[in-house]
Amino acid sequence: MKEKGRTDRADLDAVLASGFVCHLGVVVDGTPVVVPTVYGATADTLYVHGSVAARSLTSAPEQAVCVTVTHVDGIVLARSLFEHSINYRSAMIYGVPRRVTDPEETLAGLRLIAEQAQPGQWDYARRPSRKELAATTLLALSLQEASVKVRTGPPDDGDSPDAALGLWAGVVPVSLVRGTPVPDPALAPDIPLPRHLG
Amino acid sequence: MKEKGRTDRADLDAVLASGFVCHLGVVVDGTPVVVPTVYGATADTLYVHGSVAARSLTSAPEQAVCVTVTHVDGIVLARSLFEHSINYRSAMIYGVPRRVTDPEETLAGLRLIAEQAQPGQWDYARRPSRKELAATTLLALSLQEASVKVRTGPPDDGDSPDAALGLWAGVVPVSLVRGTPVPDPALAPDIPLPRHLG
Repeated sequence: MKEKGRTDRADLDAVLASGFVCHLGVVVDGTPVVVPTVYGATADTLYVHGSVAARSLTSAPEQAVCVTVTHVDGIVLARSLFEHSINYRSAMIYGVPRRVTDPEETLAGLRLIAEQAQPGQWDYARRPSRKELAATTLLALSLQEASVKVRTGPPDDGDSPDAALGLWAGVVPVSLVRGTPVPDPALAPDIPLPRHLG
Repeated sequence: MKEKGRTDRADLDAVLASGFVCHLGVVVDGTPVVVPTVYGATADTLYVHGSVAARSLTSAPEQAVCVTVTHVDGIVLARSLFEHSINYRSAMIYGVPRRVTDPEETLAGLRLIAEQAQPGQWDYARRPSRKELAATTLLALSLQEASVKVRTGPPDDGDSPDAALGLWAGVVPVSLVRGTPVPDPALAPDIPLPRHLG
């Protein structure tokens, strides 16, 4: 088995450092609801944008959530379909989130979220006004209760009887790739692409 | 607003046709658990691999789940950080899943899942044995209760007062890209890459 749980804090940090979209699970009227949203993190706190969760938390505070960050790294093609798998890195963070209300912390959380998706953008774009901060729903979740699962490497049936079948086996790598920035059609033609996006 | 809910069945089909990883949300002891897994679909049924969900469903059958499929298409860089966003396509499917026990349906569901991740692989690799089918946990979920949300296009503040700030705005495209297949190190050197992977 090349799939395993990881317990090192470094593994959690590595998963959180990649990517910028997570899936936030909340329970609404007894039913799970899983929504994609953006995140950022300090050493001990995960910040997520969370309108659905916030609505749910308003009606039921002290409610646990689960935030899952998943990176898909490859499609594992084994000799047998049973051993087919996915190479991935995934972190699950559990806990009762806190709704951030302090404007300073909201600002800090938004900065983490913005920089996670596009480094350099916080210092470039217009920062949130007091009114915008008040309209922002941010949840903070401790990173204390987290688990990481990772699968890497080739298929598991290379030394099984199926190896004698003479079938090709290996991994199709998959990665999230950023393309060339596309200007807003409404952009004045004399506005240059800033250096941090070049 | 360029973000909106879609109600066309074609929109749901299009989101499900892209990608092969979903996030499955279940409630375990009152707490949401969100795990990544693989999926496939017919016209009316979603099939997901679901060991965690299956464990949970064994203790609490008739329990609702939420399956979310999300594709990230771009990072929307607006003039203001408040208007920063993500271009994405996301489908949420709700319902009480059925655990698939019939070997024929399990086989059909596994075929859909395998072909979703790598077309051509079902006809190439060794099919599941009776024993492997019995060891496979597959959940079936009706596609009847589903919602789709999509955001596309440039930032929303091109005609706002912020346009006068002279800041660059636009979208950094993001996409999941497949690389060149990497052979299993255990593979005999005379086994060629099959045509469907070439």
